[in-house]
Amino acid sequence: MTKRIAVIGAGPSGLAVLRAFESARKAGADVPEMVCYEKQSNWGGLWNYTWRTGLDEFGEPVHGSMYRYLWSNGPKECLEFADYSFEEHFGRPIPSYPPRAVLHDYIAGRVERSGVRQYCKFNHAVRDVDFDAATDKFSVTVTDLVAQQRFTEEFDYVFVCNGHFSTPNVPYFEGVEKFLGRVLHAHDFRCADEFAGKHVLMIGSSYSAEDIATQCHKYGAARITFSYRTKPMGFEWPEGFEEKPLLTKVVGRTCYFKDGSTADDVDAIVFCTGYQNHYPFLPDHLKLVTRTSLYPGNLYKGIFWEQNPKLMYVGAQDQFYTFNMFDAQAWYARDVVLGRITLPDYDTMHADSEAWVARNGQLENAEQMIDFQTDYVRDLLAATDYPHLDVDTVARLFKEWEHHKAEGILTYRDRAYRSVITGTMAPSHHTTWMKAMDDSLEAFLNQPGQQAAE
Amino acid sequence: MTKRIAVIGAGPSGLAVLRAFESARKAGADVPEMVCYEKQSNWGGLWNYTWRTGLDEFGEPVHGSMYRYLWSNGPKECLEFADYSFEEHFGRPIPSYPPRAVLHDYIAGRVERSGVRQYCKFNHAVRDVDFDAATDKFSVTVTDLVAQQRFTEEFDYVFVCNGHFSTPNVPYFEGVEKFLGRVLHAHDFRCADEFAGKHVLMIGSSYSAEDIATQCHKYGAARITFSYRTKPMGFEWPEGFEEKPLLTKVVGRTCYFKDGSTADDVDAIVFCTGYQNHYPFLPDHLKLVTRTSLYPGNLYKGIFWEQNPKLMYVGAQDQFYTFNMFDAQAWYARDVVLGRITLPDYDTMHADSEAWVARNGQLENAEQMIDFQTDYVRDLLAATDYPHLDVDTVARLFKEWEHHKAEGILTYRDRAYRSVITGTMAPSHHTTWMKAMDDSLEAFLNQPGQQAAE
Ligand SMILES: Cc1cc2nc3c(=O)[nH]c(=O)nc-3n(C[C@H](O)[C@H](O)[C@H](O)COP(=O)(O)OP(=O)(O)OC[C@H]3O[C@@H](n4cnc5c(N)ncnc54)[C@H](O)[C@@H]3O)c2cc1C
Ligand SMILES: Cc1cc2nc3c(=O)[nH]c(=O)nc-3n(C[C@H](O)[C@H](O)[C@H](O)COP(=O)(O)OP(=O)(O)OC[C@H]3O[C@@H](n4cnc5c(N)ncnc54)[C@H](O)[C@@H]3O)c2cc1C
Ligand SMILES: NC(=O)c1ccc[n+]([C@@H]2O[C@H](COP(=O)([O-])OP(=O)(O)OC[C@H]3O[C@@H](n4cnc5c(N)ncnc54)[C@H](OP(=O)(O)O)[C@@H]3O)[C@@H](O)[C@H]2O)c1
Ligand SMILES: NC(=O)c1ccc[n+]([C@@H]2O[C@H](COP(=O)([O-])OP(=O)(O)OC[C@H]3O[C@@H](n4cnc5c(N)ncnc54)[C@H](OP(=O)(O)O)[C@@H]3O)[C@@H](O)[C@H]2O)c1
Repeated sequence: MTKRIAVIGAGPSGLAVLRAFESARKAGADVPEMVCYEKQSNWGGLWNYTWRTGLDEFGEPVHGSMYRYLWSNGPKECLEFADYSFEEHFGRPIPSYPPRAVLHDYIAGRVERSGVRQYCKFNHAVRDVDFDAATDKFSVTVTDLVAQQRFTEEFDYVFVCNGHFSTPNVPYFEGVEKFLGRVLHAHDFRCADEFAGKHVLMIGSSYSAEDIATQCHKYGAARITFSYRTKPMGFEWPEGFEEKPLLTKVVGRTCYFKDGSTADDVDAIVFCTGYQNHYPFLPDHLKLVTRTSLYPGNLYKGIFWEQNPKLMYVGAQDQFYTFNMFDAQAWYARDVVLGRITLPDYDTMHADSEAWVARNGQLENAEQMIDFQTDYVRDLLAATDYPHLDVDTVARLFKEWEHHKAEGILTYRDRAYRSVITGTMAPSHHTTWMKAMDDSLEAFLNQPGQQAAE
Repeated sequence: MTKRIAVIGAGPSGLAVLRAFESARKAGADVPEMVCYEKQSNWGGLWNYTWRTGLDEFGEPVHGSMYRYLWSNGPKECLEFADYSFEEHFGRPIPSYPPRAVLHDYIAGRVERSGVRQYCKFNHAVRDVDFDAATDKFSVTVTDLVAQQRFTEEFDYVFVCNGHFSTPNVPYFEGVEKFLGRVLHAHDFRCADEFAGKHVLMIGSSYSAEDIATQCHKYGAARITFSYRTKPMGFEWPEGFEEKPLLTKVVGRTCYFKDGSTADDVDAIVFCTGYQNHYPFLPDHLKLVTRTSLYPGNLYKGIFWEQNPKLMYVGAQDQFYTFNMFDAQAWYARDVVLGRITLPDYDTMHADSEAWVARNGQLENAEQMIDFQTDYVRDLLAATDYPHLDVDTVARLFKEWEHHKAEGILTYRDRAYRSVITGTMAPSHHTTWMKAMDDSLEAFLNQPGQQAAE
């Protein structure tokens, strides 16, 4: 009987899995039947923008954490698919830091052309997964959100691709329940215009804090205060920005910090405190329990649930690499499913992942983290027929990007890089990021002197 | 073997169930073992305020829809428990429209004193319920949110008491995804101060629209525009308020309405568009599917799932009556479980509920709806030993309340009514509602010339 694969989620990770199997099928391999359950009405995962926050029209948690005016925060050259370049998709080179809509178009373009939409069941939320050792099968229980009906199907393999930047991590701070302003998590941030003229406090010192703050500044916020737990970001911030240690309490509209200092007249507190790896549909014996990490434990090759390797996680790591790393994982997992790669026994797998986990624990700075994830991706790529990807060059670009951010947090998106895939140098964008107020695909592609794509 | 009862939710409805069985137990009856699973860390349901919105610290949908400065929108005399008066709880009469904290204190006080906390498992979310016809038992699957562990237990009866004013109903309007301001549902509204000086559009023409608007006005909003689907509320609104027909589209910060008129410079759109009856933990064969209704179908006596009457719903109706209606339901259901009342066969039950559903469909105005729900509660009360409740007087109070609202939407909460239970006239509050900015229990009870309670 034909084997069956369930893919949970049609974001970049789930789509990488579909694409990986489809490319093997087109090359003549006998591939299992695939079903991809996606709770949103379209694919693209986080890149699929929604204006909704909290719960969606079906009462499901809103997946989207992206906001209006979001631009890639890393060069597109670092995430480019080795089997589908930006040039192939847009018909010409485009600048290095595209806005969200452009990246969504790129992700969707690849899978649209490979014809995998037929495998996707949209508006289907996975509720429960279980495994029956007797039959060696997973049962996957799903709600069809439109029909409001629940059903269960059996599968031989399950790919967990539900992302881990959707369920907010929201710590409590004394007095926040009486703050006389707005409190939200980055997950619910949508429209920077709302904060024009406001004094906004960002808790956290990572990507969301940095990007939401600079966005708010771009669209007219009056003042930004950051509050860090471990260390300040230390960028050269524009006027009106200040970095403070951890928030200790809130009284009225005044915020108190660990060093005894305060911030007055705060209008809004944005929790940029990261996300939880959250798998509510998995039973305890299949569930990854981890905080955001470059190498969660118990996953061989960062993919296979060691206790039951027919359950695979794609994209469960914290991410420098994104789309191309998901591809590396998907191709590797595919080859295991197709019997091209054989997994070792549990002890060998576990010792291997423990070694990576230990090395991850020793990393001290961003450069080391980049090298670590580069080694991880390199290791996966070596085993499959995924088209050649020069990860050393990608690693170099990531490090350049870090330097460019340090040189100018408001200007780094004006830089251009050379494609690792095609070798073409990216053009500069027609407008600097601080002046590019329209983030639509049309505005981005209508670069003077160039043809619009498609 | 002792029978077992699962109660899902420790809001007013679930607590009524615990109280009903406990009072029978204290009177000498042999009652089943009870377990109440409550996903929040405390009881009180919606009355348990949370500053959180969207998803909570465990990644669960936030239950709370109540906001700061929320005061009862009906006289407390209409919801008073017949077995536990406000006077008994507070040691003296209190005014008719208490703020949220005072009502939470009252609800909690009754159950605290009857010692039912031992039955409650807090931070436990019910994930799944199933029924096995062979064993005649329900299996209830629960996640212990703190331990992050899932387990399943068996029960003979299940009470569904999860409320139905938590899962927002959020329709789409053209252009809302590009609105240059804030979009939220009433469920996520928390702090009126945030809207000081703003122009706020409320979609909807029911309790949330009316109350959130008057709150925003009280705390300094500049302008309120309402948009109704069926008909305007027609209150004598203060200056700066306007009622418009349905929103047709949003462009920038301008809202367009069905009559061709517009509202400019809108800062925020609040969807006061009601809630969904949402039972994600129930399989299709046990799940009530209904919109907000005074008499959802397929529930005998508004309680028993006719296809399997060991599954009972409490509080599933739209509500004029609240706490005392939940009591009437709980006492009736209890007596069925204890064998004091025998249920008729399916056809008889279904014909009975269909008659109520049909009558509900004919109701034309608020007075008729009040009479309808009064008849419903009267019918339940007649069958049990719940202390006497004079529902005709309650109905009269509801109608007076409607008139008082019509006479002054900003002043109706300054009225006082006589307790149906104790016969005592409520004192007037020390401050009129429009001037009562502090909604704490302490501020409410510290009425000059009176002793603080407790
Ligand atoms: C604000 C923000 C900005 C980012 N910006 C960048 C960037 O600039 N560049 C970059 O490379 N990366 C960025 N990322 C990282 C992002 O994680 C990846 O780019 C990528 O989206 C991850 O893909 P994924 O498929 O693993 O997860 P997701 O994109 O999260 O997709 C998961 C999918 O699973 C679905 N799903 C979830 N639960 C269920 C269920 N129970 N049943 C069915 N379907 C389900 C979801 O609806 C979703 O479609 C950003 C992340 C965030 C939060
Ligand atoms: C904004 C607002 C204002 C209101 N104001 C008034 C008022 O002034 N006067 C009045 O009489 N009524 C008012 N109501 C009506 C309100 O519905 C009732 O007063 C009452 O709270 C209903 O009680 P309940 O127990 O049925 O539901 P809820 O109060 O909603 O309680 C349900 C409980 O179930 C729990 N739960 C939900 N899902 C699960 C799960 N899967 N597992 C475990 N536990 C779960 C929840 O955490 C919650 O504690 C108001 C409602 C709203 C939305
Ligand atoms: N394209 C874009 O422009 C863009 C924008 C936003 C986000 N993103 C992406 O989104 C993903 C998530 O980024 P993120 O910044 O949201 O999460 P993150 O990188 O995981 O960072 C979480 C931050 O929250 C802090 N934090 C956690 N718990 C805290 C607590 N209890 N008290 C105080 N601080 C606490 C952490 O501080 P410590 O350092 O002390 O641990 C850290 O600074 C990343 O992949 C990022 O690239 C991209
Ligand atoms: N204590 C308090 O002060 C307080 C405050 C707020 C709420 N509450 C309680 O909360 C509960 C819920 O009240 P609620 O007002 O949120 O809900 P509700 O009473 O169910 O009213 C829903 C409203 O949304 C409108 N609506 C629904 N779908 C719509 C659509 N697609 N387009 C436009 N309008 C749409 C309805 O219009 P139609 O009339 O056209 O159907 C109706 O006006 C009630 O029990 C209430 O008493 C109490």
